[in-house]
Amino acid sequence: MVTVPAMIDEVRVAVIGVGNNTSALVQGLSFYRATGSAVGVSRPRIDGLGVGDVRVVAAFARSDGKVGRDLHEAIFAAPNNFPRIEAGLPPAGVTVQRGLVDATEIDRVAEALKGAEVVLYSAPSGRPEIALAYAEAALAAGAAFVNTTSDPVARDVALVRRFEAGGVPLIGDDLASQFGTSVLHHTLLRLLEARGLTLTSSYQVNLGGTEDFRNLVENPNTKKQSKVNALGSDRVQIAPLGYLPHLGSQKIAHLNIEAQGWAGTAVSLDVRLQVHDPSGAAGVNIDLIRLAAAALRSGRGGYLPEAAALLKSPPGTAV
Amino acid sequence: MVTVPAMIDEVRVAVIGVGNNTSALVQGLSFYRATGSAVGVSRPRIDGLGVGDVRVVAAFARSDGKVGRDLHEAIFAAPNNFPRIEAGLPPAGVTVQRGLVDATEIDRVAEALKGAEVVLYSAPSGRPEIALAYAEAALAAGAAFVNTTSDPVARDVALVRRFEAGGVPLIGDDLASQFGTSVLHHTLLRLLEARGLTLTSSYQVNLGGTEDFRNLVENPNTKKQSKVNALGSDRVQIAPLGYLPHLGSQKIAHLNIEAQGWAGTAVSLDVRLQVHDPSGAAGVNIDLIRLAAAALRSGRGGYLPEAAALLKSPPGTAV
Amino acid sequence: MVTVPAMIDEVRVAVIGVGNNTSALVQGLSFYRATGSAVGVSRPRIDGLGVGDVRVVAAFARSDGKVGRDLHEAIFAAPNNFPRIEAGLPPAGVTVQRGLVDATEIDRVAEALKGAEVVLYSAPSGRPEIALAYAEAALAAGAAFVNTTSDPVARDVALVRRFEAGGVPLIGDDLASQFGTSVLHHTLLRLLEARGLTLTSSYQVNLGGTEDFRNLVENPNTKKQSKVNALGSDRVQIAPLGYLPHLGSQKIAHLNIEAQGWAGTAVSLDVRLQVHDPSGAAGVNIDLIRLAAAALRSGRGGYLPEAAALLKSPPGTAV
Amino acid sequence: MVTVPAMIDEVRVAVIGVGNNTSALVQGLSFYRATGSAVGVSRPRIDGLGVGDVRVVAAFARSDGKVGRDLHEAIFAAPNNFPRIEAGLPPAGVTVQRGLVDATEIDRVAEALKGAEVVLYSAPSGRPEIALAYAEAALAAGAAFVNTTSDPVARDVALVRRFEAGGVPLIGDDLASQFGTSVLHHTLLRLLEARGLTLTSSYQVNLGGTEDFRNLVENPNTKKQSKVNALGSDRVQIAPLGYLPHLGSQKIAHLNIEAQGWAGTAVSLDVRLQVHDPSGAAGVNIDLIRLAAAALRSGRGGYLPEAAALLKSPPGTAV
Repeated sequence: MVTVPAMIDEVRVAVIGVGNNTSALVQGLSFYRATGSAVGVSRPRIDGLGVGDVRVVAAFARSDGKVGRDLHEAIFAAPNNFPRIEAGLPPAGVTVQRGLVDATEIDRVAEALKGAEVVLYSAPSGRPEIALAYAEAALAAGAAFVNTTSDPVARDVALVRRFEAGGVPLIGDDLASQFGTSVLHHTLLRLLEARGLTLTSSYQVNLGGTEDFRNLVENPNTKKQSKVNALGSDRVQIAPLGYLPHLGSQKIAHLNIEAQGWAGTAVSLDVRLQVHDPSGAAGVNIDLIRLAAAALRSGRGGYLPEAAALLKSPPGTAV
Repeated sequence: MVTVPAMIDEVRVAVIGVGNNTSALVQGLSFYRATGSAVGVSRPRIDGLGVGDVRVVAAFARSDGKVGRDLHEAIFAAPNNFPRIEAGLPPAGVTVQRGLVDATEIDRVAEALKGAEVVLYSAPSGRPEIALAYAEAALAAGAAFVNTTSDPVARDVALVRRFEAGGVPLIGDDLASQFGTSVLHHTLLRLLEARGLTLTSSYQVNLGGTEDFRNLVENPNTKKQSKVNALGSDRVQIAPLGYLPHLGSQKIAHLNIEAQGWAGTAVSLDVRLQVHDPSGAAGVNIDLIRLAAAALRSGRGGYLPEAAALLKSPPGTAV
Repeated sequence: MVTVPAMIDEVRVAVIGVGNNTSALVQGLSFYRATGSAVGVSRPRIDGLGVGDVRVVAAFARSDGKVGRDLHEAIFAAPNNFPRIEAGLPPAGVTVQRGLVDATEIDRVAEALKGAEVVLYSAPSGRPEIALAYAEAALAAGAAFVNTTSDPVARDVALVRRFEAGGVPLIGDDLASQFGTSVLHHTLLRLLEARGLTLTSSYQVNLGGTEDFRNLVENPNTKKQSKVNALGSDRVQIAPLGYLPHLGSQKIAHLNIEAQGWAGTAVSLDVRLQVHDPSGAAGVNIDLIRLAAAALRSGRGGYLPEAAALLKSPPGTAV
Repeated sequence: MVTVPAMIDEVRVAVIGVGNNTSALVQGLSFYRATGSAVGVSRPRIDGLGVGDVRVVAAFARSDGKVGRDLHEAIFAAPNNFPRIEAGLPPAGVTVQRGLVDATEIDRVAEALKGAEVVLYSAPSGRPEIALAYAEAALAAGAAFVNTTSDPVARDVALVRRFEAGGVPLIGDDLASQFGTSVLHHTLLRLLEARGLTLTSSYQVNLGGTEDFRNLVENPNTKKQSKVNALGSDRVQIAPLGYLPHLGSQKIAHLNIEAQGWAGTAVSLDVRLQVHDPSGAAGVNIDLIRLAAAALRSGRGGYLPEAAALLKSPPGTAV
């Protein structure tokens, strides 16, 4: 017997920030709706919600090149460089609104967020006061808040309690990638250990061409340090990030692992990984959005532990 | 309070076959005893038995260049090409005996195996009748039998029952490697799948310079087919093995994985692995020997399920 | 002062064989004519002839899937797998004719070749009598003959004399690639030598997915041997070719070079090359066609020494 | 008839700086004298002078850990990390002297240089006044001066004239490597161009673990800029140098080249190079020393044009 699915209400999302990650998300939503494909999707359904059930209904940006334009045009404005997935993307019917520049505008934004179930905060990291202002606006509007930046929002205990009290989900902080250097390096090191090999040395070099990369190169210490810690060994060295504009939204990583096996004989492993960072972000954002919507709809507020594996800095980790 | 370890009786091993794998094992035993190092060892203790508690007390070979020589000389005779780990290896005090060439010699070999607790069968694959004859000799001598070849021994149900009845362990068949192309490729494919990526295509090329490699190149089908099956996807292609003599006992593998992430965007992974195959064998043999000895000492005969993870074709898999 | 170019008569080419190499050539001619681009072209002009001055006016094939179809359709028929460069390729207006199957058909083909200036012989290697029959037909039709296969045609001294006497150019044998493993490997080995490094060992693995590759894999010795000789050192080892269908018309090569520098210290070089073999062929064919046409127009018959650098087996090399 | 070589007077060299490059040179001289090998040597004879004809007769350093020790001990003092090539290196019989710290000491050093034919200046770059002071001392002592640093010495026109007048050779500035990333990258780009491919983009990442590397990382601009210029294309990007201490004196470079062939089809090239930088320096220094000695012995002073190919910044290039 074929089960007839109940009609599902679309998940209405507001995106804050119209950078590469938003471009990948928005283009992908169009791709999946048009093709019905499930390629590259980690979880086809989350609480019954499919990828094609998510719709962007509002978008906010700061740059003059994006504000006032249709979302499907704005995602290609400089310095965005995520490629065009398909020719002939029709207008989104969503005009990019001007984002807030300080906390006095929370009310205006909260008003504009009415009708959205999930606010995906996808602006550049490094402006925690802006992130918090958007979180306040989302709470006021009754929309779940997903913080993809490294700014501490879900690690703010008092704020989480207020979302909890309001029955509004709060997810964050700092998006993990669907498939990136860290998980690959970590998996290989763990495999070596499981097989009884002894790590001699290891390095990792990351090269990329996005604005994110440029920002990290100009302010390298935080990111680099967090990677070393994450890999848990002083035998692993992370080379400085390389900003190579011609790579566009591609990231290329070179990994090397030198180890010793039986009687100290050498084992060498060299890996080259090539991915699109914004795709890795979109592939996780689509899950966070659905987790948030499902929780909101069932009345669960505050932090969602089921999101932890998709985040680099969930509540409880150091700010 | 410091616990004084009980004096442990050394595990007395007879090795059948004095090829590269035996060279790696024998040199490693000397290395670990001399240095006290635990580098590259998967399990420092198995039922209390350390790596340094294993001693080779008898060795059998077929070639004139090895029979009659001290084991520590014979391991460097052609066509062996596993490198010399340390200068100044002293004589082993074990003279290589002539191995059996047909089943009529079982009694002679059984006599020579007296005093050994474990028989490590490390001859070339492809002569099942010889493997079975050695197993008979081991059973007659009351020594546990470890079959590292792909010839079916532990998959012979009747034989396993006889070992069980005699209280003598029987382990096999076909040694897995401590760290080889298969486990690496498998781990990477599984990681991709876990992260929701869709496999587009993948290949694997293996290059090596040992006699084992030469034999596989001249008779490629079995091995190659088993690899494809093991990786479980018709999108994974295994290129023909390449016998490159100058590589000696090193194996070099090139792996490529092409996948699709969010909205079909490309993910590419290229890996180069360099290992010494005989080290990978020795690192597993040292565990099988200790599992066999521990079982024998505690009176457990027949197949040992705890060895399954270290074998490619344990009982129950196809012959 | 701007020089007004004289109007150039188009070079009229008949292609024998409608495989991947012809697909690349034909699609490329359309691409260059449409775009005016000079990307990837080695010599924009040869004796005044540009890439866009070449036009295919006749095509011959043997398979039922190609004969009788428009050339721009036939180039995509199986087993061809060179990708479609541009959407919307219009019909060529050239219908693929049935090629000859034995020497009795020379007259029919010669008749069909009338009007062509250059016959590009791009059928599979290994049928020298067919190659010679086409050469006879070309000579009879007064069209220059370019043999891209390894079958000996331009190495047939008597035939060259007859072309010379007839004032008809004859170019061959065996097409070099515009950019392939051999030239890359050779260049790197020469660089090492020029810098005073001592070669320890080197290997090369080639993987591909075309019918050409499949044929070479099934009949490997000739090709492999010629590569070793070409690289001129017994320290260079060529692994067996790997036919991996999913690669399509891409070729992937892995090269390794191990050398010794000052005081024997190690230098290692690992290279991965990814190219489309048919593009490498087309990039050379376009030059051979123009060399042949220019010679024909100026009345020079017989072998053209200026083509030697573009061939693997020019006259004078072993048959 | 066998020619009996005339007895050759050894070339007496004073080295300024006892870092990794001097370690490689000194150990190599011992290696070549002991083994008679010619492995890794670019030019076995220069004007009759062999590698084994060069002898270090004096050495100068600044650090307390090196001054006063035998040269064969001092070359292993921290932060030097070039590996020990051979066990059992006997004492050199040369005690490291304290180097000069300002120009007032020129006379003392000139006195100490008496008896040397060639002064090899191999101290860290970035102290031009010290380099010039040593050059003055060498001129006063009548010894040829070889400046391996990037400090301008041979680009000082007046100084070259004074060396010329004195009949004393002056070679510099800035040592090229025997085999490094630049020459490899340059060769590959040139090969692509020669074959008619169109460069799309290219990158280069250099990783190393020496003090030289650390200095360059802390002061990156000069070096990086010079590399871009040297490769002559704005499509080539040089990633920041990565200082990874565990690499020791090894340098690892990752190169990528993306190009377009026929009709714009993609060609990709990925290269990994692993070398010992100090070996690359020693392999060139041994030639410069012999060129300098040969010129001095034949009375040729001033700059030696035959050295230009071994230098990055010979006279006439920008200071």
